[in-house]
Amino acid sequence: MLQKQVIYQQRRERIYDWMAREGISLLMIEDTEGRRDSNLRWLSGMPADALLFLSVERKALLVPWDINLAKLYASADYIRAYTEFDRLPVKACLKAASLLKIPHGSRIEIPSVTSYPRFLRFIETLTDFDVICRLEESAAGVLEQLRAVKDDEELNICRQAAAITNSIIDLLEKQLKAGKIKTEYDAVQLIQGECRKKHCEGTSFETLAAGPQRSMAIHSFPAYTTSPFGTPGLSILDFGVKYRGYTTDVTLTVATEPTKAQDRLLTLIEKAYKLALGMVQAGTDGKEIAKAVDAFFSKSGKAMPHALGHGIGLDSHEGPYLRNRSDNEWILQKGMVITVEPGLYDPRLGGCRLENDILVTENGGEVLTNSRIIRL
Amino acid sequence: MLQKQVIYQQRRERIYDWMAREGISLLMIEDTEGRRDSNLRWLSGMPADALLFLSVERKALLVPWDINLAKLYASADYIRAYTEFDRLPVKACLKAASLLKIPHGSRIEIPSVTSYPRFLRFIETLTDFDVICRLEESAAGVLEQLRAVKDDEELNICRQAAAITNSIIDLLEKQLKAGKIKTEYDAVQLIQGECRKKHCEGTSFETLAAGPQRSMAIHSFPAYTTSPFGTPGLSILDFGVKYRGYTTDVTLTVATEPTKAQDRLLTLIEKAYKLALGMVQAGTDGKEIAKAVDAFFSKSGKAMPHALGHGIGLDSHEGPYLRNRSDNEWILQKGMVITVEPGLYDPRLGGCRLENDILVTENGGEVLTNSRIIRL
Repeated sequence: MLQKQVIYQQRRERIYDWMAREGISLLMIEDTEGRRDSNLRWLSGMPADALLFLSVERKALLVPWDINLAKLYASADYIRAYTEFDRLPVKACLKAASLLKIPHGSRIEIPSVTSYPRFLRFIETLTDFDVICRLEESAAGVLEQLRAVKDDEELNICRQAAAITNSIIDLLEKQLKAGKIKTEYDAVQLIQGECRKKHCEGTSFETLAAGPQRSMAIHSFPAYTTSPFGTPGLSILDFGVKYRGYTTDVTLTVATEPTKAQDRLLTLIEKAYKLALGMVQAGTDGKEIAKAVDAFFSKSGKAMPHALGHGIGLDSHEGPYLRNRSDNEWILQKGMVITVEPGLYDPRLGGCRLENDILVTENGGEVLTNSRIIRL
Repeated sequence: MLQKQVIYQQRRERIYDWMAREGISLLMIEDTEGRRDSNLRWLSGMPADALLFLSVERKALLVPWDINLAKLYASADYIRAYTEFDRLPVKACLKAASLLKIPHGSRIEIPSVTSYPRFLRFIETLTDFDVICRLEESAAGVLEQLRAVKDDEELNICRQAAAITNSIIDLLEKQLKAGKIKTEYDAVQLIQGECRKKHCEGTSFETLAAGPQRSMAIHSFPAYTTSPFGTPGLSILDFGVKYRGYTTDVTLTVATEPTKAQDRLLTLIEKAYKLALGMVQAGTDGKEIAKAVDAFFSKSGKAMPHALGHGIGLDSHEGPYLRNRSDNEWILQKGMVITVEPGLYDPRLGGCRLENDILVTENGGEVLTNSRIIRL
């Protein structure tokens, strides 16, 4: 068995154990357009549209949209084309139950994100089974917790992704200083080219590049244009790479001849970033870090319109969350990789955000990426 | 009132009328990460994350994540920042009902895609209201039907988007013939650069460029690399532009010194494309066109692993669908804009797909884009 297949098998074993404890006979995972779920890739290696069925008898059935890609990338006990399953998730689930010999009357767990109207169709179609769809205590919840703490192989990839990101940041600064990046598109083009040269799968998300006229938006719209970038004022560049499935996510602000008011904004962001970074360590409540930063901004009469940070991994947004909201119950653990990204946005002054990726350790945070505020 | 605001107001009036007939007092629409819904932009102009609440008393409340972007783009009677609504859809819905003075006991319709566990939370929180979440006869269903038939203003934008796409296709062919496109990345870079120069918001989706080694995948993974493109064999390029919100979606195949077997594949695709195009006109059943193409391929012992086509508009995949599946009930109507995209994929020969965008008319199909099989 190939090395990579062993990893997916080991991950599935943890889910099989959980299924046995929970009395779940069949688990369905779906990664398709509009219902993306990286758990499927984490458990099978398949990086594109598919359904994955796991039986408590420890068998995995993958139903890919593209059988050729599955043969190249996926690990499962059975791989069968979606076309054999009527291309309908509900019918595929019924056929999978039969193929995997799931006894009538047993429990089948379907994805937490299944819409209420679709849930009713599952109930109507799988009449011989006990279909459950839940959020708390769900397979998706368990997988989110498992995936939030990276294993050694994953951390190795995260470090490589960070190294590529850092080389791009350094090149960006060099080209900015040499006057070679004049527009938002120039910056994006540099990032995309470097990503491909360094064998990344791509960027983690569409790069957001906003020159001084557009940086007041949290996420610029359109993502980037041919407008000036790095000209006097505040420019924001938010990007990440996707390397062997794993993402980075950084934001740098380019401040060119900032005014005094803009400089105060920059100083606030740098202080907030240091405050947050100083609190990162295993055992800390994610909500408390976000709360401290919100309180810090509030003292200066400012408010941050978004969360402070989030986990990264196969997804560019995943658990844990650094979010000042009552329903956020994440506690940082060793091996989590998170972003810290304080930002402030002013319709007149422009926007400023500083974001790096940080590995949570027993005693603090190890900053993996080297994004910064670049003053020109 | 600005011209564009009139358009959004007129669209909302059609939904208000429907709400009155259905006895819906409040309608919630959500366009956020993981729950994208272009209906929000169609009804308000807001191109980024937000909630939209429509009351049967003909008032629209927009709750954007980014208040600065909303002020630039959105049309609504009230615009209030998400931060004022606890950043939680369920709580925002409760507050919106209060703000819009929705009487207790009346019906509130929430998005069709609301997951079953989240639906339960709505029920628990909005105890004073009758919360409904449905697929058939839902607001989302009505909006999908409305949006599938483009009005004159939309068709005008679609034609401009097609013209930009056509200029890119011509330039691609010219550069390919001049030997200036050597890798997948070269092709992608040309497309992205032209998009920005011509003031598009971006591409409709991540461009898929696959040289002969990778074209056997329906959608290449990674989307594009620095592998050779246009070298002997079959290369596929699938892309679209997003112009003033509206998308195009085309696929061209570059066949360089094709073998006889590859040439047979190309001929089959061109014949299937002509067969499908000849059937496009108002009144035709989308299922029947897909069925005819599947039958045509079947006669040669081939099978197409995906649907034949789909509508395009604010989304790069929307109704109607040309799909040979029992649950497909779309009938083509005048003013619909669809793709026709027969494709075949062989692990040894590579893949071949030809896709154009077609406006449905009373008497046939008007081909808007000029994608083709390029033989080198």
